[in-house]
Amino acid sequence: MSSFKTLRINHIALVVGELDAPLHFWRDGLGLALAQTEAVPEQQAEVAFLPVGESHVELVQPTTSDSGLARFLAKRGPGMHHVCVEVDNIRAALAHLKGLGFRLIDETPRLGHAGRQYAFIHPESAQGVLVELYELPPAGSQ
Amino acid sequence: MSSFKTLRINHIALVVGELDAPLHFWRDGLGLALAQTEAVPEQQAEVAFLPVGESHVELVQPTTSDSGLARFLAKRGPGMHHVCVEVDNIRAALAHLKGLGFRLIDETPRLGHAGRQYAFIHPESAQGVLVELYELPPAGSQ
Repeated sequence: MSSFKTLRINHIALVVGELDAPLHFWRDGLGLALAQTEAVPEQQAEVAFLPVGESHVELVQPTTSDSGLARFLAKRGPGMHHVCVEVDNIRAALAHLKGLGFRLIDETPRLGHAGRQYAFIHPESAQGVLVELYELPPAGSQ
Repeated sequence: MSSFKTLRINHIALVVGELDAPLHFWRDGLGLALAQTEAVPEQQAEVAFLPVGESHVELVQPTTSDSGLARFLAKRGPGMHHVCVEVDNIRAALAHLKGLGFRLIDETPRLGHAGRQYAFIHPESAQGVLVELYELPPAGSQ
């Protein structure tokens, strides 16, 4: 059996052309709090984080015109971009997926904000859905 | 202020052409349990439910060729179909959204399996994302 556990949906990410209209829907319409908005240079994007239960909604606005996100937005319009599931051992999860023959975008985790590790699985592996894996650092380690 | 609370992501729904390949990814690849598979005649679909944390992943396979789901699949291919957020008062949520001018698909809740109430918000309201609202019956009422 696999040596990792999938814990929860960490977030769903929606790609948007600008932040005002989706904030109006998710914050004013559905009552979610806007926890923060931050620039994410590695994704060439501005991201708004809205917690909901143990997950959050991420609104991702491309800030350049030539990133993967910007091309996704130009081609498909705004909408769902990816779903991120949190695991307790991202390296074990990636090795397990690779061993089953699933196509990965990142074969080793990338290091993101605040010590989190993340990796993307190719949408070919999940019937067109782009799935991100997260492993958060142990509580209190930051 | 609004008279309802948005509690959590109840589920994300993925539309698929058949269940074997996506089950291989989500169950065998990511280790989610397959809680149940059931026919949902009102959606003309077979649905597999895989819990993850306080949410679940729904794999939705159209069983006829002329439903909205089947047309979605034929037009766009498999992938994300909708995200469902659970609220504690669906009628208040719908009234609040309508009052803000958001376009709804269902202005009053529909009654689904096991006493749950649900309604869809038009994707025009949420930048191309189809959002479903759920209100579950009180625990112990079934």
